[in-house]
Amino acid sequence: MTGRADGYTLDEIVSRLGGRLTGEGCTRVVRVATLEHAGPGEIAFLANPRYRRQLASSRAAAVVLSTDHATGCPLPCIVSDNPYAYYARVAQLLNPPPQTPAGIHPAAVSESQLDPSVSVAAGAIIGKDVSVGEHCVIGPACILGDGVRLGAHSRLYGNVTVYAGCAIGRRVIIHAGAVIGADGFGIARELDGSWTKIPQVGRVVIGDDVEIGANTTIDRGAIDDTVIEDGVKLDNQIQIGHNVRVGAHTAMAGCVGVAGSARIGRRCTVGGGAIILGHLSIADDVNISAATLVTKSIDKAGTYSGAMPFEPHRDWLRNAAHLRQLDAMAERIRAMESRIAQLEKKP
Amino acid sequence: MTGRADGYTLDEIVSRLGGRLTGEGCTRVVRVATLEHAGPGEIAFLANPRYRRQLASSRAAAVVLSTDHATGCPLPCIVSDNPYAYYARVAQLLNPPPQTPAGIHPAAVSESQLDPSVSVAAGAIIGKDVSVGEHCVIGPACILGDGVRLGAHSRLYGNVTVYAGCAIGRRVIIHAGAVIGADGFGIARELDGSWTKIPQVGRVVIGDDVEIGANTTIDRGAIDDTVIEDGVKLDNQIQIGHNVRVGAHTAMAGCVGVAGSARIGRRCTVGGGAIILGHLSIADDVNISAATLVTKSIDKAGTYSGAMPFEPHRDWLRNAAHLRQLDAMAERIRAMESRIAQLEKKP
Amino acid sequence: MTGRADGYTLDEIVSRLGGRLTGEGCTRVVRVATLEHAGPGEIAFLANPRYRRQLASSRAAAVVLSTDHATGCPLPCIVSDNPYAYYARVAQLLNPPPQTPAGIHPAAVSESQLDPSVSVAAGAIIGKDVSVGEHCVIGPACILGDGVRLGAHSRLYGNVTVYAGCAIGRRVIIHAGAVIGADGFGIARELDGSWTKIPQVGRVVIGDDVEIGANTTIDRGAIDDTVIEDGVKLDNQIQIGHNVRVGAHTAMAGCVGVAGSARIGRRCTVGGGAIILGHLSIADDVNISAATLVTKSIDKAGTYSGAMPFEPHRDWLRNAAHLRQLDAMAERIRAMESRIAQLEKKP
Repeated sequence: MTGRADGYTLDEIVSRLGGRLTGEGCTRVVRVATLEHAGPGEIAFLANPRYRRQLASSRAAAVVLSTDHATGCPLPCIVSDNPYAYYARVAQLLNPPPQTPAGIHPAAVSESQLDPSVSVAAGAIIGKDVSVGEHCVIGPACILGDGVRLGAHSRLYGNVTVYAGCAIGRRVIIHAGAVIGADGFGIARELDGSWTKIPQVGRVVIGDDVEIGANTTIDRGAIDDTVIEDGVKLDNQIQIGHNVRVGAHTAMAGCVGVAGSARIGRRCTVGGGAIILGHLSIADDVNISAATLVTKSIDKAGTYSGAMPFEPHRDWLRNAAHLRQLDAMAERIRAMESRIAQLEKKP
Repeated sequence: MTGRADGYTLDEIVSRLGGRLTGEGCTRVVRVATLEHAGPGEIAFLANPRYRRQLASSRAAAVVLSTDHATGCPLPCIVSDNPYAYYARVAQLLNPPPQTPAGIHPAAVSESQLDPSVSVAAGAIIGKDVSVGEHCVIGPACILGDGVRLGAHSRLYGNVTVYAGCAIGRRVIIHAGAVIGADGFGIARELDGSWTKIPQVGRVVIGDDVEIGANTTIDRGAIDDTVIEDGVKLDNQIQIGHNVRVGAHTAMAGCVGVAGSARIGRRCTVGGGAIILGHLSIADDVNISAATLVTKSIDKAGTYSGAMPFEPHRDWLRNAAHLRQLDAMAERIRAMESRIAQLEKKP
Repeated sequence: MTGRADGYTLDEIVSRLGGRLTGEGCTRVVRVATLEHAGPGEIAFLANPRYRRQLASSRAAAVVLSTDHATGCPLPCIVSDNPYAYYARVAQLLNPPPQTPAGIHPAAVSESQLDPSVSVAAGAIIGKDVSVGEHCVIGPACILGDGVRLGAHSRLYGNVTVYAGCAIGRRVIIHAGAVIGADGFGIARELDGSWTKIPQVGRVVIGDDVEIGANTTIDRGAIDDTVIEDGVKLDNQIQIGHNVRVGAHTAMAGCVGVAGSARIGRRCTVGGGAIILGHLSIADDVNISAATLVTKSIDKAGTYSGAMPFEPHRDWLRNAAHLRQLDAMAERIRAMESRIAQLEKKP
């Protein structure tokens, strides 16, 4: 996954990516590294002030940092308003995606006509009426159901399953084991307690520049579609229920579950293991903390939390027992307050 | 996934599915839709009273509803005791499963003799001594280990893995990426802290009419079998440990985890993200709320909950700190109560 | 999965595995079973004292137990310091892994030269420069990316995906659907709220004797590697973020999530559904209870918990409301304490 064998000079980087250079522009970097472990030929970054003191001892060839940290920096540096994002772009420059040869591997099966720029690996299985954009890479053992549409420059790693009819945008990355478009959990209870399945006839529609993690699942809509807007980033093992809408540029960490018909705003973040119930709305720019259960709509930007603090087991045993007595405790407090008031009235 | 191109008249639907018709029986419907979005040729339903006012403005061709809501309904309607379940059956009528051609794709591998009505897609791999019932559909890249049994009319979507020896009933649906019969988590600790694996020699046995979601995993038993009874519905990304028994018609939402040897009753529901510990029993007709941890047996039907409420992060910080002081708080309340009693005794 | 058709005598078992024999050494056992269900030819174990009374009625041919329980045992028995681990070794003896024929199935694709002792199933896809140790078993539809290294005697079940460059030790078992080495969740926020991907150029490095459950995902490092040390046991549906290090012989139950750059000690246990946040350290010999959120480092061995107790929904509703009032409640307690003190000062 390395780029040009001889890397780039800082001059070249700044001319491509912007930023302000301090120090030797002909310094050449070939890899990214952390400030702590960087050595010759490696470029690091400083975004979090608490690592500032690593600057003095770092053996990095160069560093990306903000104006605040640039003064007195002993290394050649590139100053940026947003050093972490700048570093991300440098890392992309130095580590372009692996080149994959175009064409359909003889051990793949396709029932659709594909653009010659598309790469299809061994074991991939592509149904009828599938449309795959230019320069897409379909990994080994991927399955694209009938009628799937995939925008240009998208990449599916191995063992991805996309059910029939789903539509995926451009420059989308989907990691191994992800399942797009399985039936939503639509069941109706009969009077005898058994369940009747409700056919799920909607699709999954995914925008551009979305990344979907390994073994993440996004269900197709019951009637209307499930929608993942542009720029959404989903980590691994996330479950998105039917008819959910995830707003543009929202990011979710691993193991999040979103129940059916939830509408999540734009630029939200959701911490690992959080569960968002269905049929509710979350405003733009909301941050949900890890392991939080969201049970009702949130109509105001901000950070919301709801996890139980952890502690040594013995302490937890003692404290947790009282959780089942909180209502009684509140009642005792009320009762004491009136008894005290009575006592205070005594002459 | 659409059925008859010209759909069905309400007369035809009522004659097949029962219910009482009000309005024009020759009204023809071809698709299901929501009350809000339905248009000509579409049939909607009203189950939740809070959507009742949508009836007046709906452009649906017809609607399924209960007696309560039928009076004054401006649209042709079918009255049912259980409109949501009736709607599910209408949806099934209008959206039969896709027809899949019978036969084994040349890019599939089977070491077993299969009934000619069975459909096996490209990339599927079927071991020795596998028995597959009539009209089953084995999706692309599915793996059926040696000795697997699959009942008639079952459908496995892509990339499903069934380990050797597991037995699956009739009309079962398994979604992509599900893994049936991997080894249970059976390990014994040695005195030096390392672990010795315990071979898992039980099977997974799945009843009829079960549906299993994408990337859900059900482990084989350690010695005896893991059992999923008839009519169980499991959403995506659920983990069922070894030797669990899930009672008939129990339904679980996404991301639930059930630890080994738990016995779950019939007609239970388990909300998303709930965790059920092992070696416990849950009675029939128990509902577990989302994100609840079940730590001991439940022997009485009813609804059980245990999640922490969420709130703005700043409020949570303030409140959560006291959770670690609950025991001390209870002690202070007791102390105050006796001091107040002392004061009250004063003349 | 059965071993020698006629099993082993207790004499043979003791001579191979140690332990002290009581009763007929020529007793022959062919299978393991639970004390409760064992019959002729079956060997059971007693590790948990609460099952002791099952000894009297068990029809097992023999039993493995500790000195404490051996006195007066009516069955032939093998006495061990650690009966559960001994039983695990007996179970391994009676249930060796299935023999898989060496060689590459014609429906597999390999671009690397493999040792003739290696077994590669149909549909497996092996990239360039892959090194596979002797006697490895690569299951159906597994994907090994370019440059992957796999130690001797390892076994991958079906549909496992290993991304390019990852290194896996000896005697490792990986269950179906696991994904090793997908990109970590490395994204940098731009000033407009969109995200830029940070290429993930580290690897996953897995030690010897590790077992990884079905649909578990372990992300590759951002720059340095993600490391799973020797003897780690991971259950199903676990998510390990980038640059995590899991210490030797640590075991995690299903559905655990570990965020990026967490360092977890040796011989830890993590209960099902626990979430461990990133950039923190956990000492050796720490036990995390199920469904606990670990938000900061733990530097002392011991057991830590943090789950909300569950209760009947109605009780929970009453109690949970007070959780949002704990800070106010604490304030009222403080106020009462000073009012009581005032009253006590009154003459």
